[in-house]
Amino acid sequence: MLDPADQALHDAVTGAPGPRQRRAIAKAITLLESTRDDHRARADELLNALLPATGRSFRLGISGVPGVGKSTFIETLGLYLIERGQRVAVLAVDPSSSVSGGSILGDKTRMERLSMHERAYIRPSPASGTLGGVAEKTRESLLVCEAAGYDIVIVETVGVGQSETAVAAMTDLFVLMQLPNAGDDLQAIKKGVMELADLVVINKADIDESAATRARAQITSALRLLGQHGHPEHARHDIKLWHPQVLQLSALKSRGLDEFWAAVTHFRELQTANGKLTERRHAQDHAWMWERIDAGLKSRFRHHPAVREALPELSREVRAGRIAASVAARRLLDLFH
Amino acid sequence: MLDPADQALHDAVTGAPGPRQRRAIAKAITLLESTRDDHRARADELLNALLPATGRSFRLGISGVPGVGKSTFIETLGLYLIERGQRVAVLAVDPSSSVSGGSILGDKTRMERLSMHERAYIRPSPASGTLGGVAEKTRESLLVCEAAGYDIVIVETVGVGQSETAVAAMTDLFVLMQLPNAGDDLQAIKKGVMELADLVVINKADIDESAATRARAQITSALRLLGQHGHPEHARHDIKLWHPQVLQLSALKSRGLDEFWAAVTHFRELQTANGKLTERRHAQDHAWMWERIDAGLKSRFRHHPAVREALPELSREVRAGRIAASVAARRLLDLFH
Repeated sequence: MLDPADQALHDAVTGAPGPRQRRAIAKAITLLESTRDDHRARADELLNALLPATGRSFRLGISGVPGVGKSTFIETLGLYLIERGQRVAVLAVDPSSSVSGGSILGDKTRMERLSMHERAYIRPSPASGTLGGVAEKTRESLLVCEAAGYDIVIVETVGVGQSETAVAAMTDLFVLMQLPNAGDDLQAIKKGVMELADLVVINKADIDESAATRARAQITSALRLLGQHGHPEHARHDIKLWHPQVLQLSALKSRGLDEFWAAVTHFRELQTANGKLTERRHAQDHAWMWERIDAGLKSRFRHHPAVREALPELSREVRAGRIAASVAARRLLDLFH
Repeated sequence: MLDPADQALHDAVTGAPGPRQRRAIAKAITLLESTRDDHRARADELLNALLPATGRSFRLGISGVPGVGKSTFIETLGLYLIERGQRVAVLAVDPSSSVSGGSILGDKTRMERLSMHERAYIRPSPASGTLGGVAEKTRESLLVCEAAGYDIVIVETVGVGQSETAVAAMTDLFVLMQLPNAGDDLQAIKKGVMELADLVVINKADIDESAATRARAQITSALRLLGQHGHPEHARHDIKLWHPQVLQLSALKSRGLDEFWAAVTHFRELQTANGKLTERRHAQDHAWMWERIDAGLKSRFRHHPAVREALPELSREVRAGRIAASVAARRLLDLFH
């Protein structure tokens, strides 16, 4: 049961769009991001109460290295969608923002026109903690935006560590933005990001058209090889249902947006019709639960008094070669219980 | 303290080479591989007792897809090293062997000449369990072989799931064997195996010399790009200290072995002189301890009575969208404690 204040918050989030709803969304997300135990308990209740109102948005993940033009693209795309009657929310996963101080969405002026629009909601990356923590907060914020009725929720990430994997794991369609540069595709393959992509977009295609065409051919052939050679357990696409596509566009000149949105819409219709969209979300929820359990187990283990006391000494013994690592692990596990 | 029988086992393992030592090694490894709790406790004691005698072997990891010629290469290399006065042990990590029934080293006739040699010891992959379990057993078997004074311990793996990562994490030098085929290198990059390699060997180079030369150029340029673009946190090589090398050879015709062993020796001398060998082993031990802790936590969690009771219902609630995945995770964690 929600207390009256949180019930009012719930009602405002799920209520009519407008300044009151925007304030409620911001307040709900702030509650979710709090690390205080009492806040966390209230946030859990609020989340569960909002849950029935979620699940009707389309979740679009967008990733790419710094300089690829993500914010220009998202602003252009957001305004394009608003023109077509949609409401758009933009969230971000950027675990580096707390370190560098420069969140990818902290600087709101970056998407000035979009952020000022009443049909758009932009929230910067949670500024604290590990990738797992940042991703969890973003995932929960996504549910709040869904409950508030945004049609499209865009989750942006910069390619830091495993953040692309985290974003692909919370979205319906994952877009990888690339520059028309040699080596960029290799890097994406190496990091396993190419394999996550449902769509690859070559941005700034207007600057050097022949380089963009070359890059498109290279990435198309790489995607084909990845599809052919992929181990079954790694395969993310049933190749007969969806071949990842490669598109060229220029976010700055608003070129290629129709084509991009047509591809997204086609994907969404196909995945909805064949049940893959729901299947993917269920699998994501399941993986998310286990991911949080793993993180919670590790954190509880590290904070356990007996473990904390024995760990330094056992670590030293392992390092000095006086005790095997697996034996030390078993001793610590026994202390934990 | 070891009981008298295990003390005798310890003394035989660390004693003089010969049939008695071989039997003791086999018996010790069988004890390590046992899943019985009392065996496990004895195995832990034995491992710790053997530990001071370990650490003097060179640990060589060798991986490659089926058909690349791993067993021919390992047999040829093993005999080459024995001729030069070395004793050689061969272990394997193959988590698929329990499923397929066809362990990569189960068929001893595959390395007939090497397996018959008194200066060689060959042990097939443990036939049970997950990759983590198989890797742990192999890692402990490696320590037994070291305590028995083998100069070189070769750990072989076929490219299944993350087995290459597991083998790279227990060896001093990791070799990736490749065929002179297009696409093979892309596959290795995608799986992140190329990045793990200290040496890349193009086998069967005699069959099509021009293809082998092309493959060598391609892989060399891929390694250079991976090195340049690598994120600092992923970088495994300090590039100024060791550039991964690409060699061509023909295991069947025993061609290229001198060159291969010269590269291994150069690597070993360099890494020993600059302290990187010890540093890498320490880091591996540390990672191994935490890997086993993680696996142990998950296993204990899944077997906890309250968790087992609540898990099916909570999973259903998550699937039905009645409870958020992160909230379910927190509830289960609370039950665990």
